[in-house]
Amino acid sequence: MTVKDEFEFISKIKPKEIFQDNLLVGIGDDAAIYRPAERMEQVACLDTMVEGIHFLKGLSSPYEIGYKALAINISDIAAMGGIPKYYLISIAIPNSWSEADLYGIYDGLNDIAAHFRIDLIGGDTVGTEDKLVISVTVLGEVEQSKLNLRSNAEPGDVVFTTGFLGDSAAGLSILLNENDKGNTEDETYLINRHKLPSPQVMTGRLITKLDRASLNDISDGLASELYEIAEASNVSIKIDESRIPISSALLNFKESPYEYALYGGEDFELVGTTSRDSWNILKRECEKCSIQITQIGEVVSGEAKVLLTRENETVLLEKSGYNHFKK
Amino acid sequence: MTVKDEFEFISKIKPKEIFQDNLLVGIGDDAAIYRPAERMEQVACLDTMVEGIHFLKGLSSPYEIGYKALAINISDIAAMGGIPKYYLISIAIPNSWSEADLYGIYDGLNDIAAHFRIDLIGGDTVGTEDKLVISVTVLGEVEQSKLNLRSNAEPGDVVFTTGFLGDSAAGLSILLNENDKGNTEDETYLINRHKLPSPQVMTGRLITKLDRASLNDISDGLASELYEIAEASNVSIKIDESRIPISSALLNFKESPYEYALYGGEDFELVGTTSRDSWNILKRECEKCSIQITQIGEVVSGEAKVLLTRENETVLLEKSGYNHFKK
Repeated sequence: MTVKDEFEFISKIKPKEIFQDNLLVGIGDDAAIYRPAERMEQVACLDTMVEGIHFLKGLSSPYEIGYKALAINISDIAAMGGIPKYYLISIAIPNSWSEADLYGIYDGLNDIAAHFRIDLIGGDTVGTEDKLVISVTVLGEVEQSKLNLRSNAEPGDVVFTTGFLGDSAAGLSILLNENDKGNTEDETYLINRHKLPSPQVMTGRLITKLDRASLNDISDGLASELYEIAEASNVSIKIDESRIPISSALLNFKESPYEYALYGGEDFELVGTTSRDSWNILKRECEKCSIQITQIGEVVSGEAKVLLTRENETVLLEKSGYNHFKK
Repeated sequence: MTVKDEFEFISKIKPKEIFQDNLLVGIGDDAAIYRPAERMEQVACLDTMVEGIHFLKGLSSPYEIGYKALAINISDIAAMGGIPKYYLISIAIPNSWSEADLYGIYDGLNDIAAHFRIDLIGGDTVGTEDKLVISVTVLGEVEQSKLNLRSNAEPGDVVFTTGFLGDSAAGLSILLNENDKGNTEDETYLINRHKLPSPQVMTGRLITKLDRASLNDISDGLASELYEIAEASNVSIKIDESRIPISSALLNFKESPYEYALYGGEDFELVGTTSRDSWNILKRECEKCSIQITQIGEVVSGEAKVLLTRENETVLLEKSGYNHFKK
């Protein structure tokens, strides 16, 4: 499709409600302007989804594509312990997509934006010849000197993860399997975990209150994220396979679910490390908020690597990441 | 092309120098973190260029594509009177482009970023099947309460523009004309004005010191930008065609250059309005800095429209914008 009248289009997609009081100039001028909160750092990230690589048109609705494109960026802000505040969007849309498709994408964006009270402050929609490309920038804030860096892990730390892992990869596998279109409740749950991720902003905020933590969101699979922390912090990480949290839906779907949990990717849960004392505080705080968080291992001194204990045997975990639909 | 090792790739494109002291976490974690300067607002914009719409591979080198993608966003920050500080980049690159092409894009980005002392703080490079899509987000800062909004124009204001107008459209016309490949010095100048725009950051900063100004950058042609100001401010704008600044190269290239100046687009100069007193100050400040700035008309009360005086006749200017390669 081609947007015929840019100004009419902007007025249609312009949000009806502004969530952030500090937004001074939103959509409609050359750039947006907002006032940063006092004693807060600014957090910024950008992530792109491309049709055929990150999603397939037949398998995801425009709504789901928009929702996920913003969700994966909010997840990056969560992994820095930040509060998401604003977003900018770029959509390169092929002629084969309809105007209704485009508004569907914006509906998905608007819904998750409203949930997290984030304002759309800029961006553009342009025509392209072939594949849809959607890029989102999210801007947020985090308290000064509270950086949950990958390089913060220290020997003696507890290794933890939020939620259940491997669901998203199972959901994708169901979507890609033509004989199995997700008719059971478990399958629907797994597919939704793939299509509509839940960024762990609240957990990130609780972790920011700790004295020190390392933190990643799980976009490329638990193994890959743990290696990032191990390498950035120059420590060894030991995890216990049996402690990795697996949903009952995934257990019902697959007898050996750990491949999905370790290498599946796109869970958009958080994985991190913190001192034992801070872990006890965090666990209590998460319980109060009904947030599931699980200790899965510990940090030990040694070269940068990740070890996995499986049935009393400890093996070096293969360093491998999630590669979407790529071969 | 496909980026085989994301981490190796990031280490290759990671800037060798950091310009902004306030950058706390750059490329390499989930999101970037920086400290905003005190008593400054944050400015943010995002613009996308798509192969086949905004540039043609045969006519622009990867270097020029990268350079321009960042330049047009810096120009938006300039139009808000801001100082550009950081940028994030998303490149969806087709398999038919080589690794050298990709590094060429980054060379272009790096050069203009270094010129304006802007730090690359995030983004991603992903494969796509067909056309190159490049999205840039630029973040900057501007003094509190100094907003050069489109809606700021008032009757009695002087209408001004920086630099020369119409060069970029002439440069594009030369590029698109197979019989005329830009062999003269004038043609080279015009082509470079199209490919390597010069965002008017310094002029934007001078305008920010004025009590009040309306301001736009000229991306869609002078006529379209003037209409935006007239409509946002609900005023009439009268300009004198003979006062529109035309370069000698454009005069040599085309006997009647005003079509390009009014409707050509992509000049990335600034157009705005300010009170007569402020205009006198601005003119003097620009002279000191050897910045060309020209009065081209005035703001009068009346309905939102733009009038053009041409050879003692005043006509209603057609509201029309630049449409790249679109039909």
